Amino acid sequence: MKAWMLAACAVTGLLASASAAAQFKNAQDAIDYRQAALTVMGNHFGRIGLMVNNKVPFDAHAVQVNADLVATLAKLPWAGFIDGSDKGDTAAKPEIWSQPDKFRNAALKMQDAVGKLNDAAKTGNQDAIKTAFGAAAESCKNCHDEFKRKH
Amino acid sequence: MKAWMLAACAVTGLLASASAAAQFKNAQDAIDYRQAALTVMGNHFGRIGLMVNNKVPFDAHAVQVNADLVATLAKLPWAGFIDGSDKGDTAAKPEIWSQPDKFRNAALKMQDAVGKLNDAAKTGNQDAIKTAFGAAAESCKNCHDEFKRKH
Repeated sequence: MKAWMLAACAVTGLLASASAAAQFKNAQDAIDYRQAALTVMGNHFGRIGLMVNNKVPFDAHAVQVNADLVATLAKLPWAGFIDGSDKGDTAAKPEIWSQPDKFRNAALKMQDAVGKLNDAAKTGNQDAIKTAFGAAAESCKNCHDEFKRKH
Repeated sequence: MKAWMLAACAVTGLLASASAAAQFKNAQDAIDYRQAALTVMGNHFGRIGLMVNNKVPFDAHAVQVNADLVATLAKLPWAGFIDGSDKGDTAAKPEIWSQPDKFRNAALKMQDAVGKLNDAAKTGNQDAIKTAFGAAAESCKNCHDEFKRKH
């Protein structure tokens, strides 16, 4: 690797971390942000769950609106897992930082699963929605089992 | 008003409140949801603020992404101000429930202002973005002054 490439990488890394730091006032702010994003996402995911599980009447439009929100929100929490935010008011396990590739894969699996749920929602097909919802719920559970402490 | 119209209104009201209740497990769940939505929105609004106030370099694409998120998130918190959620871990003033029209207007003003910020973001024009950001920030402050307790 040429010296200028190393320099370019170093500068890019520096800018990326300055930019990440600038998004949050401190580690707890990053924790609050990621928890908030997951709370809102979980609520809208749960609204689809109520329909999938016949607790409220199926409403294709409501599924679409909520699935679209879930897919948008699913992209957000990850920026909040900044260095130093393993300490504080958080249920995040240290494995998030010690096994970053495994955590990233789990996060990407979830985003893929909710993307498929959003695709299914657009068809309005209840069976397809139910299947995609189940797979997305499984991706939430798998990541929580691995990376979230039980209270 | 005919009797059947009154009956229809009563049924509609009943369905609306059953549906609202179904979104939240209890009053605190609704409080957590609205606070989370405002936290995520505030973070993305703040990211635009850092650029508007020259704390980080202006990035037209980043402004667009964040303004779009803010406009989406701005629609969410209001569903969380359900009856009974004036009590709990909340800074919401009782005026939200005693002056619902005034609160609704303040919420709509904010949504209108962040819609305009989103429009300005799409143009990439820094002056337009700065003006629209200022108006949106003012709409946040006005609503907080009227309806949010200071800690």
